[in-house]
This record gives sequence, structure tokens and C-alpha cells, in this order.
Amino acid sequence: MTLPNARDFSHLYSEETKARKPSPLKTCIHLFHDPNIIFLGGGLPMSDFFPWDNLQANAALPPFTNGIGSALTGSKDDSLSLAVKKNEASEGDIPLARALQYGFSAGQPELIKFLKEHTEIIHDLKYANWNVIATTGNTNAWESTLRVFCNRGDVILTEAHSFSSSLSSAEAQGVACFPVPIDNDGIIPEKLEEILDNWTPEAPKPKLLYTIPTGQNPTGTSLADARKVEIYRIAQKHDFLIVEDEPYYFLQMEPYVADVKAREESQSGAKKSHEEFLKSLAKTFLSVDTEGRVIRLDSFSKVLAPGTRLGWITGAAPLLQRYVELHEMTIQAPAGFTQTLVAATLNRWGQEGYIDWLIGLRHEYTLKRDCALDGLHKYLPKSDAFKVNPPIAGMFFTVAIDASAHPAFATKFNSDPSLVEKAIYDKVIARQVLVVPGSWFKADGETVPPQPQSSKSAGNPNEIFFRGTYAAVAPEKLLEGLKRLGQALGEEFGITSA
Amino acid sequence: MTLPNARDFSHLYSEETKARKPSPLKTCIHLFHDPNIIFLGGGLPMSDFFPWDNLQANAALPPFTNGIGSALTGSKDDSLSLAVKKNEASEGDIPLARALQYGFSAGQPELIKFLKEHTEIIHDLKYANWNVIATTGNTNAWESTLRVFCNRGDVILTEAHSFSSSLSSAEAQGVACFPVPIDNDGIIPEKLEEILDNWTPEAPKPKLLYTIPTGQNPTGTSLADARKVEIYRIAQKHDFLIVEDEPYYFLQMEPYVADVKAREESQSGAKKSHEEFLKSLAKTFLSVDTEGRVIRLDSFSKVLAPGTRLGWITGAAPLLQRYVELHEMTIQAPAGFTQTLVAATLNRWGQEGYIDWLIGLRHEYTLKRDCALDGLHKYLPKSDAFKVNPPIAGMFFTVAIDASAHPAFATKFNSDPSLVEKAIYDKVIARQVLVVPGSWFKADGETVPPQPQSSKSAGNPNEIFFRGTYAAVAPEKLLEGLKRLGQALGEEFGITSA
Repeated sequence: MTLPNARDFSHLYSEETKARKPSPLKTCIHLFHDPNIIFLGGGLPMSDFFPWDNLQANAALPPFTNGIGSALTGSKDDSLSLAVKKNEASEGDIPLARALQYGFSAGQPELIKFLKEHTEIIHDLKYANWNVIATTGNTNAWESTLRVFCNRGDVILTEAHSFSSSLSSAEAQGVACFPVPIDNDGIIPEKLEEILDNWTPEAPKPKLLYTIPTGQNPTGTSLADARKVEIYRIAQKHDFLIVEDEPYYFLQMEPYVADVKAREESQSGAKKSHEEFLKSLAKTFLSVDTEGRVIRLDSFSKVLAPGTRLGWITGAAPLLQRYVELHEMTIQAPAGFTQTLVAATLNRWGQEGYIDWLIGLRHEYTLKRDCALDGLHKYLPKSDAFKVNPPIAGMFFTVAIDASAHPAFATKFNSDPSLVEKAIYDKVIARQVLVVPGSWFKADGETVPPQPQSSKSAGNPNEIFFRGTYAAVAPEKLLEGLKRLGQALGEEFGITSA
Repeated sequence: MTLPNARDFSHLYSEETKARKPSPLKTCIHLFHDPNIIFLGGGLPMSDFFPWDNLQANAALPPFTNGIGSALTGSKDDSLSLAVKKNEASEGDIPLARALQYGFSAGQPELIKFLKEHTEIIHDLKYANWNVIATTGNTNAWESTLRVFCNRGDVILTEAHSFSSSLSSAEAQGVACFPVPIDNDGIIPEKLEEILDNWTPEAPKPKLLYTIPTGQNPTGTSLADARKVEIYRIAQKHDFLIVEDEPYYFLQMEPYVADVKAREESQSGAKKSHEEFLKSLAKTFLSVDTEGRVIRLDSFSKVLAPGTRLGWITGAAPLLQRYVELHEMTIQAPAGFTQTLVAATLNRWGQEGYIDWLIGLRHEYTLKRDCALDGLHKYLPKSDAFKVNPPIAGMFFTVAIDASAHPAFATKFNSDPSLVEKAIYDKVIARQVLVVPGSWFKADGETVPPQPQSSKSAGNPNEIFFRGTYAAVAPEKLLEGLKRLGQALGEEFGITSA
């Protein structure tokens, strides 16, 4: 069956995108590689004057038998020795002379080829002209998304609490973030539809929904598969694009089993087959998308390392071309060293080896998530005022707190939950553990004209929360941190902790 | 003598900069490195799960006795073997575990330290609170500069012909580029002052002058030192910032000597001492700046390799902080692999070794510039219609052409020089050599309200030009290309070439 092409969404472009003239120099840069042409066209330095002759690295070796975090001995059993030369390269490698030159704004072919094959393994694309381009990570990719589609004065939709940097990015550009109510399964489709059905004509209708579906930051929740289908239908009805920001997609875990013995049994022979692993992954918006209405942001930051500054966007080719035109005036392309090293590693691992890595990662995060939840159950003060929702993906847990349970809520804090939040933050810092106040992540959409009030909030108005992560430290330290957190909360609320 | 601090230029910030709220998460990320705090604060993956154990490279070894372009043998005489480990590092190296982690948005300390020392060697800073931050190169740094200072509807000043991508960047953002007349010594200060003294009140006064002082792109000219002092005075009078975009600064050459024998004598013992080399460099706007009014963009793209995607900005600390806040929402930081490898190379070379490299680079570009001029003198048709101005810096030469000398100017081309330009471009491509039409670089400032007409143009209205580069190919190929160019022009203008 021949798949249809994506619909045309050029009516959603920003003024900037409409005004952007691709550099005329880019129309002739391909002639640099034409053997018949003598290229006196552009300021490309000769690679003879690049001071590096070759690049080598030791990388972990599939199938990562001792776990993805075990130190490499340098032996052939656990270490893969990579070497990439300047002027020649094995298949799948990017020779340094090319990686370090100008060109390939959309990403080097050896990297893009791997990412496209990976895309076909993970997603079920339903239109023909999809494409993949390289980025310097999702932070930049999201900022670029705003530039490509939004004008000052526009409104976008976001989860009611979302990654603070993503919200600030929009707000700095004069784009308001309208908060969509969420619960433990993510965005509530009925609330979203209600907001849009009742949109006041004074405010421009949102062009984008920004969502972090898997292991959401900061709430740690994941958007249920069935809701994605519903939300996509609403996107079609109200003609907006869905931006799925998925840095944590491959940090999906096995369900939390509180009983340690049962857990060990359920995780025995823990290493799933590739097929089981792939089947266990959440359905993506990309797989639901029949029209090219979804822009997916992926990143190596959580999967390999943040300092790679390397990610990719998947979406309809005409939309991605607008990003490339912006990139030609901004990042140009991800750094050549990064593209060379990541491509050399991934192409040696192969798609199967990369999935081994992802399975290993899932295992490590499952262990750490379990450790965090065990610790929270053990150390949090025993009170209904404190609630933990076991995350099934990502790096974050949240402790929801009923601020009105604070003995001095009405007196010292004047019944203001935000003052309780501040007092707790000061207390945890004094106790030498760092968790982050939920209010830092609030999409307030202050500049949006008033909408039906019912849509803006959900749940207990006195509920505050703190975000913690089990990602950044080793298990013993994590447990010690949670103990300190429990003590700080116990002290603040006058409850003796365990 | 204690130097004063920079003046406050916050009145020149864009709306976006004024609205940008630094991410609250950045206020606590430093606690990640605090041994007393257990960090459950941010989504930082553990470096145990970064798959690379170490990174090695072979680099050229100072003093680069056989020239900076000679192939490395791998022996200790010409090759420097670098190795950087994950968890430990020699002084001046950035361990991979840190380089590949989040953090250090302004650049890793080992790199910034080197760049600050370099800055002190090259420039004569006249205020105290200057700083250096890392960028992903000047393309991005310039785009960020526009975001930091300009609003839609603003006007900036640029050389009448300037780098097309820089102009397009501004225009896409709704910022008009007002062309300032230039001659063979760059911007003409009197014309600049006349423009500003007569600025019509309807248009916002320019906040920025964007200039490529050294080896200007596309004209290949360099701005005379004395003019920099004059232009700085005008910047003070009319309160704008000067952005000096200096990718070609270290491609300053010895003067062109047409007579080959005399040239060989003048270049004998060609390798200058470090002192002579430093003295020969053009005075920079940064060295003239007493108030923190200059923002300098430097890049490793032409000096090491474009694919490093690494550069730096030098300027007043409070202004640079605004870039860092923008970077935290865009690039975050240059890629860790790049910072590690460049810092490891530079810190092993040392400041002296880096100057050896720059002297070597200057030598190579002098040879190639000489080769290009020799070839142009030999192959261009003998006619007053074709003029070449010998560049003293950069990668580019231009051939200025009096379009009215074309035998069919009035008939076939209807006295329109742009049609002659198009005909020449088609002809050179057909002759299999690529040079680039000057009109691609024209700052037209179409959206700027009319200004005194006298200021907008200078010289012969029928003069067109083509930009070529001697950078991208080896000498033999360059000469063959110039031969083809000469033949193409001779054919087009009906002049038998030599």
C-alpha cells in the first residue's frame, strides 16, 4: 500500500519562517563535492589545515553483559575500540575531513541513515514523506520549533506543569503557555477539548500543543496510549500541531512491585527479548499521525550523554526543511566530533546492539526507580498529607503534599500553600538534600485572555508538590537523600518519621 | 591603574531579553558538585551510563616545522598524541564525565581559561569587567546577538555588501539592514556619520553596527585601524553597539608583492617572531573600546576546523550574561567532545604553540593569496573593465567588473548590470568554475524609511563584482579555476584572454 504524503501545514508558519530567505550560497555548496567543478565559491578551509589526523575512543561493547554501567576493562570482552581517520573511513563512519568541514546542515548521512532505520523499528509511520534531521538536543529543537511556528502574541497549549525551561523559552518569545489539566495519566483529553471548544475569539487559537508524554517533567507521569488517539483527534478538529518532546522515551520501566520478593521473581530473567521490549514501549504520537501533524523531538542526552549535544527531529519533510533553513542561520549542524563519534559507535553496535543498550538502560532505571520508591515508602512521614505516584518512565518522582496539613497553615502561612512550599524548600536545603518545588514548573499563561475557569485547575487547591530524581546519584546516596527528605518533611509538619 | 567597569547598556536590550526569566533550575545546578548536598534536583544522568571510556586523537605538534598542512607521520617529531579519560584528567583537560554532563553553559573552565589568556595576548582591553563565553560559532553567535538586542521593526547598520547569511538572519527576524558605503579600506566613517546625523525620526535608530573588519566577506577588504577609532567615536555619539565578527582575523597576510623575485626576498626567513607577528595584527575594536560597547565574535572555524562548531564572544560581562541566559534555552553549551578535544589540544600546545599555528596559517594563506593574484593577473582579460583589489586578509578576492563594457550592455541587457551579472554566472558555471555574484551579498535595507540618498551608494552604478576564494582548493587547481574564469569573462566580453 502506498502511503499518502503529509498535509500542507504552511498556514501555521511564523512570520519569521515566511520571511526567511534560504541563503543563496547554500544553492551552490553541493558543487564543492562535484569533481568537474573547480570550487572557488565559498569560504571552506582546506582539510589539510585541520590539526587532527584521527580520533579514537573506547566504547562499551554489546550485548553489555555486565550491565551498561560497568567500568570498561579495555579488554575485547567489554570494550569496543573505535578509530576514525581523517581522509578514509569504514562504511558507516564519517571521515574527519568531512565531519569537520561545512555542509550537511541536516546531519551527516551516516548518522541520519541509522536514525531513520531506528525510526522504522520504533514507530509505525503512516504517511510517506517523513524525514529525520539532526539537532543539538531537545532544548534547542523546542526553541527552534517556537521560532518556526509562533509569533509574538501567540498562545500554545502545555501540560499544566511542564519543564520550566521549555515554558520560559516560549514566554521570552512573547508566546503564552496555556495550561491543560493533567492527572496521573497525563493530559485529560476532555479538558483539552473543552478549552478549545470554548476558546475566546480574542486570543489567537493555539498552533501547538507541547507535551512530554513519557516520564513527564516534572510530574513523572506518562500519557496513556488511548489518550494520544483522543488528543490527536482534537488536534485535527482544532487544527494544531502536536510537539512530542521525548527525551525520556527509552526510560520506560517495568511496573513497580512493592514486595521485594515478588519483585525479584517478576524481574528474574530480567533481560527481555528485543521483541518483548519493543512491544512494551508506549504508542507514540508519531505512530498515530496520519497527516504529518506531529513533530517528534528525540535526544541522546538521557540515552548516551547530555554533552553529545545531539538529538533529532522526526516529522513531515516540508516542515523539517523550515528547521534546516533556521539551522543554517543558527547551529549550522551538530559538532563534527559528536556526529563522528556517535555514528561510529552506533554503526558498530548496529540497531540490535543499540536496542541491547536501551534494554540495559531500562533495567538500570527500573532498579533506581524501585530504590527511590522503597526509600520514599520507608522514610516519608506516615501521613495522608504525603502522596507518591509510582512513575513508570523517566527520571522523576514527585511527592504531593497537602499544605493545609501543616500545623501552622492558617497561622504562620496565612493559608497560602506557596508559603508552605517555600518553607519546605528551605528546610530540605538545610537538611542537605535537593528536591525542586513544583511551582517552578507551573504554566500560568498569565497573558492569555480569560478562558472558562473550570478548565484551569484540577484537584485540591492546597496541594503542592516537590520533584525529585533518582537519576543523578547512586542507590546508597539516593536512600540517604530520601531519608533526609523524610526527616525534613517530618520536622516541618511535626510528624515523627520512621 | 585600576580599569573602570563597562557602562550599562541594558537600554539596548530586546523585549525578548527583558522578558527572559533565567531558569530557576539553573539557580541550584551548582549544588550537583557540592559534596555535602545529596542532589535529587535535576535530570542529570549518571556518567556511569555514558558509553565512552576515553577519547584519543593525534594532533599536529608545535612548532609545526614542516608547515601546518603537512600530513602527520604519527612519529613524535610531528604528532601529539592526546588522551582524555572519563574520570580523571591532566591539568587543562576536561574529563569526559564532566564534558559529557549538563552544566557550564558559558563553556568549560579549562577552555575559557585558555581563551581569556589568548584575549589578553591579542587585545588591549580598556575596561575591567570583560568576559569570554563559548559559542557554537559565529553564525549562531550573530543570530543570538540579534535576539539579545533587536526587536521586529528595528534597523541595524551593515557594510553595503556583507555576508548573505548574516543579512538574511536579521531580515528573517524583521530587522532591516541599512547599508553603509564602503571602499577598499572598509566602512567610510564620514558616510556613516552622515547617515546617522540625518536619521529620519520615523525609523528607530540603529542599536547595532554589524561589521566584518578583517578580510571582509564578500569584498575581501580590511577596515583601516584609524577608521576603527573614528567609527567608535560615532558609536558613542549615536549610542550603538559595535559587533565585530572576526572569523578571518588570523588570516592576515603579508602585503602582496607582484614581482616573484622580490616577493621571495621579502618573504625569506618568512617565519616571523611571535613579537613581530603580534605587532603586525590589525588593531581591534575590542582594543579601542573604553565602555564595553563592542561585542567581538571569534571562531575556530577558519583557524582549526568549521566542524568544531566552536567559537567565543568577548565583551562586557553583563551583556554576555544575557547570551548565557539565551544559550540555556538554545544550545545549552558547545558539544562536550568538541570542548574536550579543543581544550586538550590548545592546552598542550600552550599560548606559544597556538601562535606558532596561527603564524603557520598566515604563511599558508599568504601563499594561496599570492597564487590567486598571480593567476588573476595572468588570466583575466586585459581590459580596464576588470579590477582586482589585492586582499590583505581573509579567504576572498573580488573581481570588479564594469558591466557597461559588455558589448551587448545596451542591447541584449537593456543597460541593466544585474542581467550582465547573471549572464556571467551562467557562463562561469558552464566553464566549470564556481565564483559567486556580488548581488547575493547586497544589504538592501528595503524596509528602512528613505534616508539621504547620497549615502546609499558610492562609485560606478554599473560596477558589479564576483567573489572568489583561494581557500578551498590547492594551488594547481586554483590556477586552473582562474584560467577558466578568465576564459569565461573573455568569451562573455568578446576579449581574447592571454
